[in-house]
This record gives sequence, C-alpha cells and structure tokens, in this order.
Amino acid sequence: MTCADAVTNAPGQAAQRKVGPGGPTEDAALPERKGERTRRRILTAARRKFAEVGYERATIRAIATEADVDKSSVIQYFGSKQDLFREAVHWQIPHDELTTSDPGQTVENRLRSMLDTWAADPDSPMAVLLRTSMTSDEAAELLRRHLTVQVTDHIAATIDAPDARLRAALFSAIMMGLAAQRYLLHLPDLAEAEVEDIVRIATPLLRSLIAPEM
Amino acid sequence: MTCADAVTNAPGQAAQRKVGPGGPTEDAALPERKGERTRRRILTAARRKFAEVGYERATIRAIATEADVDKSSVIQYFGSKQDLFREAVHWQIPHDELTTSDPGQTVENRLRSMLDTWAADPDSPMAVLLRTSMTSDEAAELLRRHLTVQVTDHIAATIDAPDARLRAALFSAIMMGLAAQRYLLHLPDLAEAEVEDIVRIATPLLRSLIAPEM
Repeated sequence: MTCADAVTNAPGQAAQRKVGPGGPTEDAALPERKGERTRRRILTAARRKFAEVGYERATIRAIATEADVDKSSVIQYFGSKQDLFREAVHWQIPHDELTTSDPGQTVENRLRSMLDTWAADPDSPMAVLLRTSMTSDEAAELLRRHLTVQVTDHIAATIDAPDARLRAALFSAIMMGLAAQRYLLHLPDLAEAEVEDIVRIATPLLRSLIAPEM
Repeated sequence: MTCADAVTNAPGQAAQRKVGPGGPTEDAALPERKGERTRRRILTAARRKFAEVGYERATIRAIATEADVDKSSVIQYFGSKQDLFREAVHWQIPHDELTTSDPGQTVENRLRSMLDTWAADPDSPMAVLLRTSMTSDEAAELLRRHLTVQVTDHIAATIDAPDARLRAALFSAIMMGLAAQRYLLHLPDLAEAEVEDIVRIATPLLRSLIAPEM
C-alpha cells in the first residue's frame, strides 16, 4: 500500500465528497479534481509539519503556509486540527489482498507490504503517527486504536492458540520495531540491509509466532 | 539493570569523581555524598524534562528548576546541555552477567533484564533516548551509536552465521519494538500481558534468530 492509497481510502475523504452539491456531475468534474488536488496537498503538508514539530506544536496556519493555501481552505476541507490529524495519519492495511491459504506466504506478504509502504514515503501516515505518538497523548491514543484494530484484531483472528491476542500484539511490536529502526531511526545494519535478507530471516520468525505448532 | 545502576556506571560520573581535590578522604566523605545526591537529582530531572519536551526544547534553566538547584550547579556538574543529555541517557547492558553457555537461557536473561529495566522507571535512560530520538537528530545519532555498540556488536559476536550483523540488528529491533509498545505507547494487549507469557512466547523466537540451525 502506498501513502497515496492510504489517503484515497481514508473514510473522511469519502465523507467529504458527499458534502458537494448533489455529488459530482460532468460539469463539476474539473473543480472536483482541483478540490482533490488541494486536499492532497494539504494532507501532505500536514504530515510533513506534524512529523517535523509534533502534534501539539503544528498549527493550522503553519500547515496552510506549507501547503501554499489559505488557512480558511484548511478549515473548509478538514474542520479542526484534530480532524486533519486523524485523516493525515489514517492508513488501511489491505488484509484481503495479503492473506493466502499459506501462513508463511501471508506473513511474507505482510512484511513486504509494510517495508514497501515505509520505503515509499518517509512521511507515510504510519511513520507520522509513530513519530508524533512519542510526544503527544492524543497521537498515542490514535496509534493504540489504529494498531489494535488494524493489526492485533486481524492477526489474532487468524491464530489458532489460546494466547492469540498476545501473539498478534507481539507480531505488531516486531513489525513496528523493524520499521522504526530501519526507516525512522536509520540504524545502520538494518537501514543498509537488502529487503530480501530481512524477509528471509524475519519470515520464519513471524510465521512461528502466528502459526505455532500446537 | 536498574536506572540507578546505569547512572552509577556512567563514564562521565567516574570522571567527575576524579576532579575532586585529591580524591575522596574520610573528611571529604560527607560533601562527596551530597555532591552525588545533587548529581542524581539533576540527572533524574533532566530525564524527566527531556522526555517531556524533547532534546531541543529542554533548557538547562528548566532542568535546574525541576531539580530545585541553581542553573550554575547544572553547568558546574555537567558542563553543556549536550554533555548532560549524554550522561542522562547513558546506559550499559551487563552482558557478562546475562551471558551463559546456553543461548536460550542467555536470550531469556536479556529479555527479562530489558523488561525489568523499562518497568522500573518510565524515564529510564533508554526510554528517554528513544522518545527524544523521534524529534531530534542529535538524540537519534546517540541512539544509533548506543544500540550499535551496546546491542548489535555484542550480539553479532555471539552468532555463528554469515548474516550475524543483520540477525543482531533484528534482535535489537524486536526488543525495542516490544519495549516501546509495552512501556512507552501502552498498547493494551502488550501492556497488560504477564512477563512470563511474553518470555514464553518471545524467547524461542529470539533464540532462533541468534542461534540459527545451520
């Protein structure tokens, strides 16, 4: 999943579209596209600003300046800073696409998809949420909810063991530790490693976590 | 290792002791102890302040206020903010104590020691360094150096495989992901789990990482 996909799939964006006067028509197609572009520009600027100075210190004014739009446009498109933040850091894991009948393959798909997402954009929604969650209770609460619903709940449902939830939570922790050290903190040995080597070593580990021999 | 041990083992502190007039004597014992207490109070206050507002925004003045000492005392004991930060986030893993002839036992020792350290103090040196490294290049550089020297180099030296360094780096990433989600971000499933359950599930995983079947 790329960052752009995550934005496109954001539920808030779908809601925004419905707000238009009677929905998109052929005549309205051009302004609609322009509106989309402006929304995206604001979201990109918001992610950059939130990542840079944290949730509390990022102002709507600074984000508007970064996006080269009026402050009123930001408010018109997104409402409050809280709503803008929620949409900027929203991401959706394409569970259906990643899941196969083979647990090893599913784990490998999840790992590759996660590495691709983080590699594609240093200010991806997940990266910005993790970065901001270290200094903001609001961001940390959103991260807890996202990871629990988007990762732990989904993975736990696929594990046939009494400690399924803890195994799923450890899966999430390992994926986050890996992404954080490779892409956010740039630990040299991980940052310089080939994706294939990471996949080769980490896949059997993650597989044994979610498909334990009973 | 507790937070206090980490502080006691800090090299800067040893250097400070040597600065005294001819080293501690019986007469000098009392002021020496008072000096130690003041140093510790400043270090604790510094960790709290750095964790709260980040490296860049924490001022020596604010740390002095938090520690209830004069700004000049902070400078006298630690020099610059950079030096104070280095000492506040310094920690030393007791590798010799943790290592046994059995890789599984060594891994379990490492895991328990890490969980104990983080549980003992929400502002432990490692926790503060991780928190601040998300918003400060200076802190991130220090974290990279600490983790590479304190964890990756040590673990890699014990692994008998051509990809020893990457395996050691993944070990470090997994430990950090686990600590961050349990103690910093309070992901509910991990935060509420029993230590014994985490050790039971994570030990075989980490063992297979550092003692791969060739």
